[in-house]
Amino acid sequence: MSGSVGIVKTEYVTFDTELQLESGRLLGPITLAYESYGELNAERSNAILVCHAWTGDAHAAGRHTPQDRKPGWWDDMIGPGKVLDTERFFVLVSNVIGSCHGSTGPTSVNPRTGKPYNLTFPVLMVRDMVRAQKLLVDHLKIPSLLTVIGGSMGAMQSLEWGILYPEMVRSIVPIAGTGRTSPMAIALNSLARQAIFNDPMWKKGNYKPEHPPADGLALARAVGHISFLSDASMHLKFGRRFSVRDGLFDFFGQFEVERYLVYNGQNFVDRFDTNSFLYLAKALDLYDVAWNFDGLDDALSRLACPSLWFAFTSDWLYPPTQTEEVVRALERLGKPFAYHLIDSDYGHDSFLVEPEKFTPFVVAFLDRISKGI
Amino acid sequence: MSGSVGIVKTEYVTFDTELQLESGRLLGPITLAYESYGELNAERSNAILVCHAWTGDAHAAGRHTPQDRKPGWWDDMIGPGKVLDTERFFVLVSNVIGSCHGSTGPTSVNPRTGKPYNLTFPVLMVRDMVRAQKLLVDHLKIPSLLTVIGGSMGAMQSLEWGILYPEMVRSIVPIAGTGRTSPMAIALNSLARQAIFNDPMWKKGNYKPEHPPADGLALARAVGHISFLSDASMHLKFGRRFSVRDGLFDFFGQFEVERYLVYNGQNFVDRFDTNSFLYLAKALDLYDVAWNFDGLDDALSRLACPSLWFAFTSDWLYPPTQTEEVVRALERLGKPFAYHLIDSDYGHDSFLVEPEKFTPFVVAFLDRISKGI
Repeated sequence: MSGSVGIVKTEYVTFDTELQLESGRLLGPITLAYESYGELNAERSNAILVCHAWTGDAHAAGRHTPQDRKPGWWDDMIGPGKVLDTERFFVLVSNVIGSCHGSTGPTSVNPRTGKPYNLTFPVLMVRDMVRAQKLLVDHLKIPSLLTVIGGSMGAMQSLEWGILYPEMVRSIVPIAGTGRTSPMAIALNSLARQAIFNDPMWKKGNYKPEHPPADGLALARAVGHISFLSDASMHLKFGRRFSVRDGLFDFFGQFEVERYLVYNGQNFVDRFDTNSFLYLAKALDLYDVAWNFDGLDDALSRLACPSLWFAFTSDWLYPPTQTEEVVRALERLGKPFAYHLIDSDYGHDSFLVEPEKFTPFVVAFLDRISKGI
Repeated sequence: MSGSVGIVKTEYVTFDTELQLESGRLLGPITLAYESYGELNAERSNAILVCHAWTGDAHAAGRHTPQDRKPGWWDDMIGPGKVLDTERFFVLVSNVIGSCHGSTGPTSVNPRTGKPYNLTFPVLMVRDMVRAQKLLVDHLKIPSLLTVIGGSMGAMQSLEWGILYPEMVRSIVPIAGTGRTSPMAIALNSLARQAIFNDPMWKKGNYKPEHPPADGLALARAVGHISFLSDASMHLKFGRRFSVRDGLFDFFGQFEVERYLVYNGQNFVDRFDTNSFLYLAKALDLYDVAWNFDGLDDALSRLACPSLWFAFTSDWLYPPTQTEEVVRALERLGKPFAYHLIDSDYGHDSFLVEPEKFTPFVVAFLDRISKGI
């Protein structure tokens, strides 16, 4: 059976280096927040890198204190006897650069000015996040990764790992990802951006942390929530139920779905920084695995390891057709891969809501990879 | 061949009556703006009522002045020799109550206070809009309507006409409609609402017309635009093209799709009132043909005329499954109907972008209905 990794702690490491970004700009020094679960074996060959999504962080499993109401964001997956079995694997998770949960991002102090970067922070690509993670993996003296796994923006990172560091990566597991974000995904992020830009509290990114553009960020988050759900999951969760507190003909009366979006948007303000949200949205928009290569096939031709792909039928943010575009290219190139289209009603969030639908494939895959088959 | 109805004029009529609304509130007097094209025949049996969508108006065909850059919103459909042939039919279009193009709405002066209604305007349902249109049809001494046709909110009105006034309506043609809006559609409208509520210029609806909440309304419109398009139509129209004026790594740099949404949102502010936008969004959210009936079948059992339905494959705002829910009920009830699922990439907007894909069915249907077959 499966258990918890117990009480865990976020660690921090600072690299006194300057990373050359895809934009040509330099970023440094770079601090990364990370957590790890399980032990490296003597051969240092059992490390799994978990990559988080847009608003995720390094805290993927266990609790920071016994009083924590919730465990880490992928606690279902990580622990003794679980899919990413910490009795067998060393599981590493780091917060991406650009984020606000301990790694260098727009809220960090720019050492050259002594002030927070805010909008002087450079625009990042997912590839830059992966280059920063590489510093951490090297720092921990991990010569190769058994797998790099993640959902959504985590899927993008796992693919980038396979392409940038083929000599280090023994497999990748991109879940609910895409080879490049679509204009629909960009359009949705555009709504989120405008919601924040419209908020006078945003002050072109120079708000005080204690006075964030709360209304704008809450609305931006609501846009995200809609794109993570699906028509079917909204029917299941809310239907057309009207809030019992409101009158149907009140101008400000809300259906349950609206109440949910507003409430969760407001909660989000307490746990995420607005500029980080914007920088990560930008990185998502810019994501194209073919960037700086001669097209998709040229990019994927660098991949040297087996890959395991999952897409979800009701995901309309990164619909299955986008993963299929990538795996068709892998097929053309004769690369080893497996692809599973998972039937789920929970939209993009399916990978978090119904892990049991795809994890058996992950377990079998990791077993095979760890035995070197 | 087909021509234009030429120069047309919007007419206005005021009914010195109080309409009892679904909310129980009274609204009056009621002014309706309308246009008509073609002539009523001697038997007064050739009238077609066209119902407009959310931000539409009474100006569906022709031009108000020779200098007008664009004709009315359904000029493709209405004119001599066109689908709604003004040499055969008398085509009537009225602006719905709640709107801001001449009919009574939140910008109108409340005769009891001498001030604009703003948020004291009552919350409306689509059924209320249809009751107000009935006043106009009676005023014009039109005993029966050959058909009631419209897309989107216009489809809802056409169905309501068939159910409320079965003795007057000889056919209905609902296009890209739904029997009830889904939680997804409500969620999207929720984003639009929050965008406006967040704008300090909105002032709880008490903005001056010359100082509207422009940023909020522009963003609200952008939400609408996204829901009217589709993944496929965005790929066709924008792809991942980046604005040539911006640098890819500029924080404020835009993809073409974002530039389009922002630009069109801003343009919309000049042609639509914010409170009207909100009241009509609310009416859309509340739309359920079964309202005040014992369910869908009970509502539809009142329909006494043939109906012709169209849905579009890529429409994710009111997806085909929603129209199919209605037509399946018609089938159960033994009502005469025809349903066509039209293959189009243009999302909800397909009915405006590719009318040629469904209009042959409309022409044949009207021919049959007007001959009483």
